[in-house]
Amino acid sequence: MNPGGPAPKALLFDVFGTCVDWRSGVAREGEALGRRLGIDGVDWAAVADAWRARYQPQLETVRSGARGWVNLDVLHREALDAVLADAGLERVAPADRDELTLAWHRLDPWPDAVEGLTRLKVRAVIAPVSNGHIALIVDMAKRAGLPWDVVLGAEVARAYKPLPEAYLRSVAALGLTPPDAMMVAAHNDDLAAAAACGLRTAFVARPREHGPGQTRDLRPEGPVDVAAEDLVDLARRLGA
Amino acid sequence: MNPGGPAPKALLFDVFGTCVDWRSGVAREGEALGRRLGIDGVDWAAVADAWRARYQPQLETVRSGARGWVNLDVLHREALDAVLADAGLERVAPADRDELTLAWHRLDPWPDAVEGLTRLKVRAVIAPVSNGHIALIVDMAKRAGLPWDVVLGAEVARAYKPLPEAYLRSVAALGLTPPDAMMVAAHNDDLAAAAACGLRTAFVARPREHGPGQTRDLRPEGPVDVAAEDLVDLARRLGA
Repeated sequence: MNPGGPAPKALLFDVFGTCVDWRSGVAREGEALGRRLGIDGVDWAAVADAWRARYQPQLETVRSGARGWVNLDVLHREALDAVLADAGLERVAPADRDELTLAWHRLDPWPDAVEGLTRLKVRAVIAPVSNGHIALIVDMAKRAGLPWDVVLGAEVARAYKPLPEAYLRSVAALGLTPPDAMMVAAHNDDLAAAAACGLRTAFVARPREHGPGQTRDLRPEGPVDVAAEDLVDLARRLGA
Repeated sequence: MNPGGPAPKALLFDVFGTCVDWRSGVAREGEALGRRLGIDGVDWAAVADAWRARYQPQLETVRSGARGWVNLDVLHREALDAVLADAGLERVAPADRDELTLAWHRLDPWPDAVEGLTRLKVRAVIAPVSNGHIALIVDMAKRAGLPWDVVLGAEVARAYKPLPEAYLRSVAALGLTPPDAMMVAAHNDDLAAAAACGLRTAFVARPREHGPGQTRDLRPEGPVDVAAEDLVDLARRLGA
């Protein structure tokens, strides 16, 4: 395990898109809801895309300080109202909206994620550094079998990525310095922000995160310490 | 798993004394240091006891607000100076004191702890709610094989037990309410404080935590939902 220097003591993972397939998971629960309500002709993958597209602008209201700390359930639930309105789905009842919001707690891992993380865990501390809150990340991990050592991220750091504090406080919580840690993500902007804080970086390709027509984040767009096909490949490249 | 009502969704564990044997672990590292420095005739178990005895008075300076937040490494390191002075061990150099302070990261689990936690993890979220900081708890878990789902406790709650916030914020971080959670500890004061916050409680007997002459916490001294011999017995009693 030596790309970019001595073995990293901690591997910090982006979760949505990097470890789990949010698009298929949200679409699956949307389709189930549609069947139950007798709603036909909805492209639930497009609903998932529209829902996710509201995420960064929402986070920005918190990152900028315009809004106080709220967790992702609150942001997801608010965004869902707008997404359903845009899709002509105003008829979905509040209780169903609450339940659909929890689809983000029940996402499936990419097929390589559990094996890759399990192997990497032997060599280093593995922790999510996600903008998801602790309850969401724990629910997801229990259901999917993601074997985290510790849950870090926005709620522990009190800052949303890509603010530097999200990375720096996560590293500090482990008693480490930035070069001891490697950020693992399928997103170039996440890795660029982590690298600017002094962390090492690993790009993991998720070319279907946004569906079959994905055009972004197909490859690393800046210097990274490791580029991997998936998390099992990352384990192999890091000697785990 | 139904003592005290429906199955708890989360089991929250005291760590020092309940899951790991701090007295033997600290004494072991003290003895190794003594051998290396050629120091004879020191009762290192008594040093461990004296060190631990300073812990609650130190925490109280933080709990009371007289002192800002500091982690347990800082408190342990400060207390060690006083303990070594009392033991006539002023000759121990600062670097050795720093290293001995990390003995608290390297404590062995009680023999039943890994099996008990592994079984309980199948049925519920298992999390330390300790006054230890994240780095210490993670180092200990990696070395000892304690299979936590998530690390909660003082650093996440920004409050030291037995302040109510330490319990209530840990429960809230999991998206739960207090009756969904069960505090597991070998210490009656910890369980009484958790119960006052509405959590369920499990007493686990650790009659050798303080050595062969232990007189306190030999049994539950107030109402608890479960009383167990050890963590494997707790798993059995909870149907896990």
